[in-house]
Amino acid sequence: MLALVFALLAAPPHSAAPRLRSRVAGWRGAHETTIVGELTTLLAVPNLASDSVNIRRNAALLVAMLERRGAKARLLELPGSPPAVYGELLTPGATRTVVFYAHYDGQPVDTGRWASRPWSPVVRDGPLTATARELPFPAEGGRFDPEWRIFARSASDDKAPIVAMLAALDALRSLGIRPSVNLKFFLEGEEEAGSRHLRDMLTRHAETLTADLWLFGDGPVHQSREPVVSFGVRGVMGVQLTVYGPARPLHSGHYGNWAPNPNVMLAHLLASMRDEEGRILIERFYDDVRPFSEEQRRALAAMPRVDEQLKGELKLGRTEGGDASLAEQVSRPALNVSGISGGRTGSAAANVIVPEANAYIDFRLVPDQRPERIRALLEAHLVKRGYHVVQEDPDSATRRAHPRIIKMTGDAGYPAMSTALDLPVSRAVIRAAEAALGRPIIVEPPLGGSLPLYEFQEVLGRPLIMVPIVNHDNNQHAENENLRIRNLWDGIELYAGLLARLGREWRGMVP
Amino acid sequence: MLALVFALLAAPPHSAAPRLRSRVAGWRGAHETTIVGELTTLLAVPNLASDSVNIRRNAALLVAMLERRGAKARLLELPGSPPAVYGELLTPGATRTVVFYAHYDGQPVDTGRWASRPWSPVVRDGPLTATARELPFPAEGGRFDPEWRIFARSASDDKAPIVAMLAALDALRSLGIRPSVNLKFFLEGEEEAGSRHLRDMLTRHAETLTADLWLFGDGPVHQSREPVVSFGVRGVMGVQLTVYGPARPLHSGHYGNWAPNPNVMLAHLLASMRDEEGRILIERFYDDVRPFSEEQRRALAAMPRVDEQLKGELKLGRTEGGDASLAEQVSRPALNVSGISGGRTGSAAANVIVPEANAYIDFRLVPDQRPERIRALLEAHLVKRGYHVVQEDPDSATRRAHPRIIKMTGDAGYPAMSTALDLPVSRAVIRAAEAALGRPIIVEPPLGGSLPLYEFQEVLGRPLIMVPIVNHDNNQHAENENLRIRNLWDGIELYAGLLARLGREWRGMVP
Repeated sequence: MLALVFALLAAPPHSAAPRLRSRVAGWRGAHETTIVGELTTLLAVPNLASDSVNIRRNAALLVAMLERRGAKARLLELPGSPPAVYGELLTPGATRTVVFYAHYDGQPVDTGRWASRPWSPVVRDGPLTATARELPFPAEGGRFDPEWRIFARSASDDKAPIVAMLAALDALRSLGIRPSVNLKFFLEGEEEAGSRHLRDMLTRHAETLTADLWLFGDGPVHQSREPVVSFGVRGVMGVQLTVYGPARPLHSGHYGNWAPNPNVMLAHLLASMRDEEGRILIERFYDDVRPFSEEQRRALAAMPRVDEQLKGELKLGRTEGGDASLAEQVSRPALNVSGISGGRTGSAAANVIVPEANAYIDFRLVPDQRPERIRALLEAHLVKRGYHVVQEDPDSATRRAHPRIIKMTGDAGYPAMSTALDLPVSRAVIRAAEAALGRPIIVEPPLGGSLPLYEFQEVLGRPLIMVPIVNHDNNQHAENENLRIRNLWDGIELYAGLLARLGREWRGMVP
Repeated sequence: MLALVFALLAAPPHSAAPRLRSRVAGWRGAHETTIVGELTTLLAVPNLASDSVNIRRNAALLVAMLERRGAKARLLELPGSPPAVYGELLTPGATRTVVFYAHYDGQPVDTGRWASRPWSPVVRDGPLTATARELPFPAEGGRFDPEWRIFARSASDDKAPIVAMLAALDALRSLGIRPSVNLKFFLEGEEEAGSRHLRDMLTRHAETLTADLWLFGDGPVHQSREPVVSFGVRGVMGVQLTVYGPARPLHSGHYGNWAPNPNVMLAHLLASMRDEEGRILIERFYDDVRPFSEEQRRALAAMPRVDEQLKGELKLGRTEGGDASLAEQVSRPALNVSGISGGRTGSAAANVIVPEANAYIDFRLVPDQRPERIRALLEAHLVKRGYHVVQEDPDSATRRAHPRIIKMTGDAGYPAMSTALDLPVSRAVIRAAEAALGRPIIVEPPLGGSLPLYEFQEVLGRPLIMVPIVNHDNNQHAENENLRIRNLWDGIELYAGLLARLGREWRGMVP
């Protein structure tokens, strides 16, 4: 029905991207409480992938939201999986089809650490500092200070992009402009739970999802608060390591210095794997790293340096990697020790030799590293350091038989994904985005973070480009996740411009 | 009055230590339910130092128990402190005075982890295994299987030695043998709460506590289950180290490899401080270590090796220190990493760069190491590795100004205590104990554990020797603390022999 409405309207003006932007902004200014209201309604529904009742409440709400825009919408199902929400909005005359991806599930919450309840959205006058104030939501038709923030689980990651895209459609319709491409929606419901059913979902519904390009609305914009388009993500692999000491906790005075100390073993092991500058010391680790293309190198060098600003924000006196920029450091493979534990520290400390110590590591991988190969290299490193490697808790006989035992578990992980910068579609997206903004956009060869985007490329074989909108300082995955209002406004303008221009730029490209 | 009874009796036979031992055992066989009954009555009174009502009920009961043996008994008071229980039993003609030390307070309990209530003593047919059975206490005059165990808080640590000493007095009186020394009792009421008032207590009551020797009834016998006399303890000092990363948790994909990773920093730091064999790598750490005397070396070498037995029990495939025995390893200074923490591991793991990582270390010190000197050496080590050392949480300016910051806190700690093996009194105690047992006793130059015994030496200037009696596998400080009945019987025989022989052996020694 919406398509019909567009068809009856005059074609949009030719140039005038900045003009479009200000017209979208004007429309938004008159609808701020409606837009934010749609977002907070969505945020109020708990969205753990494991909470099957509530996750379906989210999905049903999204179907209704899509249908309100005239999209044909339905759930894509797979046994044992949260549903994906699918929507389709065809534009008469459009020759290219774009799938917009976002996910509607969120990370687990540690409620005790939140300043307000994770699924009860509140607005505050800025980041959560000591002086931050909670404010009442403006009355209908009112305005938001763009520096205010909405606090709730998934405010940024990843419900805001969904609401931004729908608001962009509303804005275009209101301005009498129709999208330049056919638009499909694929809203995933278990991204934060590891996307276990994603491959099956894509395979089963491949025909439905046929398209020329996937646009990903996930992840943050640049730390300079400038918009960015990203052409890749790193892969990731989680590894849990457990080293063993005595079978029961021992008095450190009577047995320490004799019973092997797992905390010390773990310290030596971790130190052997990675230095304090980020260099990974596992043999052959860098063998499969694909060198950057000239265009990627140029894009990396052109990215604004935010290192000093961030060091101030994060109270850092140094960074890893010497003079290398943040952008360079997160485009390389990484070994992040996310967690260590063994016995207790602080006021709960006790003088014991503990039975085991644990470390959780996330490896970040770049093209063409494969998780299974990295796991094999890690295992070889452990063996070389005298460890007997097991996948299950060792039994007594195993513990007695080996001087050093390590349990290595974790997830299968996934490889990186990269879209070449010199594809016609890549150039079209960059040009359309720049037209939408009225100025250059930051081009990020890979995003530092990880998403299982290789699945899309492997299963569907289409290029994939990310158009994030949310603020970088959003406490994503942690307590007090938040969305800066201006990022929502900017996102609506970017998405509206992309929808209006992408088809035309694309047609103009020589393949 | 008891002294008067002894005075009227014939002098004890000259030789015949084994004969004395079997006579004591015979007496005990006829009084087992009485002895255990006195212990369980004492164990039934809750004994947290902080529980001022119950701690005084313990003290009053102990006064009554001492008075039943004819001792003059009273409470030694100090404002704000649980009372110490003092008792005095003079022997006409004795020229030496011995203070018997034990403590009647116990460690805090985590009731949910106990198989039976901590202050409701029960008897079981052995250690608390899956097949262990709780038994009824034998009727009056009945017997205990010596492998049975009494389960209650302080069954081993440290009420059993008190009951053993009183039973030894009863046995001697019944056999018509009088102690060879004047005996004083000093029963502390806040040892497990850190002995905060001990120094003041000893200072204020120094005259009352005048003696030639302190005998300590605390700690376990050797892991071989053989009796032991110990001539020292190690000092201890707890240090908490905190290293800092970004001011807030960061997504490891977007910031890892650039933001300093505190878990990695801590790993490198700990690895720089101690190797995997127990050797401490802090410069000059061993400077003040007093070499063992020839006698101490001989005693260490003569200690039974329980390493293989313990490796089996503890499911160990190796021990630290190469071929060195447990006894050697715990007679050396040690750096035990008791706890590490930074972020989360296991199912709670998250891909973040955490703001800080912590380690808790207990240093074990030997003569003549001083805690304040060790702390200075540690600080120098940290500075050498590029750390700015602080004692409080660093503020923003401090964090920005220094590439690496470490917070170092902890307790003041205390030094080791050692009594030379070649003092006349040391040789007298060894000979009297061996006479009591009828065979050699294990001589332990230092106990691996730590007790603030240096306080006694510093304040009172008298030698101090430990004569422990309880089983090593007693779950001391933990849930399901227990006493093996045979250890109580052995303890009564050892203490009776010491009381009967010590004065005579001592007189025979050339100073």
